[in-house]
Amino acid sequence: MTLDPDQQAKEQAAREQAVTDEAVASFAGAGSDRYREIMQSLVRHLHAFARDVRLTHDEWERGIEFLTRVGHITDDRRQEFILLSDVLGLSMLTVGINAPASAGATESTVFGPFFVEGAPEVALDGDIAGGAKGTPCYVTGTVRSTDGRPLPGARIEVWEADEDGLYDVQYPGARTAGRGRLRAGDSGEYRFWSVLPSCYGIPDDGPVGEMLAAAGRGTMRPAHLHFKVDAPGHRTLITHIFVAGDEHLDRDAVFGVKDSLVHEFVPEPPGRAPDGSQRDEPWSRVDFDIVLAPAQGHRGVSA
Amino acid sequence: MTLDPDQQAKEQAAREQAVTDEAVASFAGAGSDRYREIMQSLVRHLHAFARDVRLTHDEWERGIEFLTRVGHITDDRRQEFILLSDVLGLSMLTVGINAPASAGATESTVFGPFFVEGAPEVALDGDIAGGAKGTPCYVTGTVRSTDGRPLPGARIEVWEADEDGLYDVQYPGARTAGRGRLRAGDSGEYRFWSVLPSCYGIPDDGPVGEMLAAAGRGTMRPAHLHFKVDAPGHRTLITHIFVAGDEHLDRDAVFGVKDSLVHEFVPEPPGRAPDGSQRDEPWSRVDFDIVLAPAQGHRGVSA
Repeated sequence: MTLDPDQQAKEQAAREQAVTDEAVASFAGAGSDRYREIMQSLVRHLHAFARDVRLTHDEWERGIEFLTRVGHITDDRRQEFILLSDVLGLSMLTVGINAPASAGATESTVFGPFFVEGAPEVALDGDIAGGAKGTPCYVTGTVRSTDGRPLPGARIEVWEADEDGLYDVQYPGARTAGRGRLRAGDSGEYRFWSVLPSCYGIPDDGPVGEMLAAAGRGTMRPAHLHFKVDAPGHRTLITHIFVAGDEHLDRDAVFGVKDSLVHEFVPEPPGRAPDGSQRDEPWSRVDFDIVLAPAQGHRGVSA
Repeated sequence: MTLDPDQQAKEQAAREQAVTDEAVASFAGAGSDRYREIMQSLVRHLHAFARDVRLTHDEWERGIEFLTRVGHITDDRRQEFILLSDVLGLSMLTVGINAPASAGATESTVFGPFFVEGAPEVALDGDIAGGAKGTPCYVTGTVRSTDGRPLPGARIEVWEADEDGLYDVQYPGARTAGRGRLRAGDSGEYRFWSVLPSCYGIPDDGPVGEMLAAAGRGTMRPAHLHFKVDAPGHRTLITHIFVAGDEHLDRDAVFGVKDSLVHEFVPEPPGRAPDGSQRDEPWSRVDFDIVLAPAQGHRGVSA
């Protein structure tokens, strides 16, 4: 018995739908409603992808092999899954979903794979460079709420690449450099020394690098300084500031640039710096006032 | 300036769409049309998933952490990514996409994570058990084309779990057991000894096991014997035969069961077997005639 092409197409679509339905139904008994919602949606979208592109067995196998290599190159100091999420735009989308436009609050951007817990604590006017190479850079600003109230004691974590475009964790050994934690002062003010951020290529010696090459995409990120800022009663802010004038601002490999996050890093000649220190070499300064959104009352995010 | 809720929702949707558009566009320069198609579709579906469930930062982080653990438990003898694909129904869907109903051809099912290249070659009437524990089982059949023509020399690879429900690669050490390769004879016939397949739980001591537990799902697979069959000019067949009567046939953890693949494994008393060998213990037999679809002319799969 041979089916005509129309019947055959209908039969085929019904068989494929049946597999999707069965996989979706298998999560019906999940203990958590949220877990069920997430997994059932994941199955639907994953299956829709495979059906849309008519995924071949070889392609499925190459996908498995790709993810295996992403897993094997990932360790305590390298997170290729975050890098993958970043270059697919999933990280930036997640940022956008969770930090919807809130009048006056500082915008968010991608977390990136180079954050490390437990960075050194530095005092106001302290130096987070820790030996990282680069032009000294004095970073100042305030942390406030959207209602204008200063947020003394706000926790600020910063991290950055050195002038060779590498984070400390990309070097052999366990040196910590170019990262630190501080607390805002009594008026919400903060001040620290670091080095002028440099543009860099994201790690391209692993599977994500191969993907970018196959896609004809560049690997460069414009120069930036990472911030993670927390204060009680406020939404955690994860962001960077970018260096105005960087040639890669319009083609960031991970889609992280927002206009409001591009800041002037002002070059200064040798001499006395605002914190009273004497500088024998040129240095740079940037001012970045941070505004945190309230933790409650934004749309689209459940607790 | 505060936006009203409608304007705010529109603004938010537009921002999210812009991230997706930018990520899709980043693959426009891919060297291969097929690669571009796959990656752009993947980005669209992945982003649609994150937007549909309003993925939180914590959930994203847990996803990264889950995939990291899947990667780290995967090695030469354990493939947790294939297991993940299997329990999400993606493997079975890919099978369905690539082996559309072809009049008269044997149906396909999931490949599974336990295939190993280079299994021992056995002659017709040889034994693939290699020390695997279980009731001896004599497996016979023919390999034919959909036009009825026998396919002498067809390559048959078989693998299975032992009576404790474990594949050789799940034991410590590098013993090979319960797997073998043979070639069909001059009339397309094949015959070999193995052991009666047993039902088993898929590995549940890793992240996939945690996922099944959180979903309230079982881990059992009904008893089955894996086949991979190749002949020139024909579509590679990847399938199992299932043991009729197994209590798990209607809730296979990886959605692999199809009615046409359920076969009677007939128990036999001690005595002379069809290959002339003397059996001192009870044994079992099953007959499985294999029909391969032509390699060309099926819909929906490009070369």
